Amino acid sequence: MQGIRALVFDVFGTLVDWRGGIAREARALLAPHGIAIDGEAFADAWRAQYQPAMEDVRSGRLPFSKLDALHRRNLEAIAAAFGLGSLPESARVELNLAWHRLDAWPDVSPGLHRLRTRFRLAPCSNGNISLMVDLARRNGLPWDAILGAEFARDYKPKPIVYQSAAAAFDCDPGQVLMVAAHSDDLAAAARAGLRTAFVARPDEKGPGRGEVRASAPVDIEVTSLLELADRLGCGKA
Amino acid sequence: MQGIRALVFDVFGTLVDWRGGIAREARALLAPHGIAIDGEAFADAWRAQYQPAMEDVRSGRLPFSKLDALHRRNLEAIAAAFGLGSLPESARVELNLAWHRLDAWPDVSPGLHRLRTRFRLAPCSNGNISLMVDLARRNGLPWDAILGAEFARDYKPKPIVYQSAAAAFDCDPGQVLMVAAHSDDLAAAARAGLRTAFVARPDEKGPGRGEVRASAPVDIEVTSLLELADRLGCGKA
Repeated sequence: MQGIRALVFDVFGTLVDWRGGIAREARALLAPHGIAIDGEAFADAWRAQYQPAMEDVRSGRLPFSKLDALHRRNLEAIAAAFGLGSLPESARVELNLAWHRLDAWPDVSPGLHRLRTRFRLAPCSNGNISLMVDLARRNGLPWDAILGAEFARDYKPKPIVYQSAAAAFDCDPGQVLMVAAHSDDLAAAARAGLRTAFVARPDEKGPGRGEVRASAPVDIEVTSLLELADRLGCGKA
Repeated sequence: MQGIRALVFDVFGTLVDWRGGIAREARALLAPHGIAIDGEAFADAWRAQYQPAMEDVRSGRLPFSKLDALHRRNLEAIAAAFGLGSLPESARVELNLAWHRLDAWPDVSPGLHRLRTRFRLAPCSNGNISLMVDLARRNGLPWDAILGAEFARDYKPKPIVYQSAAAAFDCDPGQVLMVAAHSDDLAAAARAGLRTAFVARPDEKGPGRGEVRASAPVDIEVTSLLELADRLGCGKA
């Protein structure tokens, strides 16, 4: 991996457990309203709205809107099916911020601290800046900058999102390693000229329902950010 | 200062000593080329090109260009006057990066660490993201995000630069405190709806040639970020 100067990261699924976190937050927030839900089914349903909502922006049908705003629209789309019809506005606002309160996988903070000793680091996520900031503070993620969709004003897998992250760090795309648990994200990054690292998150979408191996050509495959730090020669933080 | 949720900062002069740093870097880089200069006069001359260059972007005559690119153009404008005509390209590139190697005033890192316990923090500078990242790493500046000109794609004092920083943090402008050592920057921030804190840097432009008191109405006046942390009730980091 000669010539790599910066690492950029997918976040949902790659660094943080969106399914477990949304399930936990939704159960806890809805119980006082007398609403009992299957938290994991709710998380899956909410996440299922994610790509179609972003496609409205990518296609130009909708001007760029922060992911928080798309999440809120998506919440309304599934609310009736989960019995949330009478949930007051203040609780909907709070529930929508559940995405700001997700937990990182255990290797993420120590791995990033090691990687930071040799490389510039930023998220390259579809999540908005304030969402990334809250996840960073909650989980101790030592970002140099918050790049990705809100900076690019468009959504992955559009090439500008990857390329604008490289440009912000004064890098050619080939000097940046995109790290993700999703082969489609990495394939798009590679098409945009970046190098790619696959990190396995086999339980991301429920037990055994994450990607174990990359299904697209990648430059490195690892099972954790600690292994990535080893492979890239990053010692103690 | 009820209702403040985020603090954004001017950087050149307010947080880092551009004059002393440019003078030091230029002397050290030019000596091996047999060029002896008055480092402070060189710094002042380079900085004097700063506002006219940005005005080309603000006025629309030039598409948005990173400050690094404007600094390079400005360096060429003063090169002959300082005897740099024969300086090779590689040395010009290195000299242009002197802006990435400036030192913070002594109160800045400890002050920001205290302020960070209660507020989201970002630079709102005309400097580009990679420049801000290098200054943060050199000086231990614990930013949550890098906001400002490159994010807004325009230069202060245009209101969009201040307002886009507030929006990235999900804040109304009135929930954000702009911190600067320059009354004109604070006056523009106030016109954009932000609240304002003046920090005195009396020696910024040479001994006794910085602002001692704000010459525009501001919400707070302090002499250091440690005093600002006291005034905003921020204890130990």
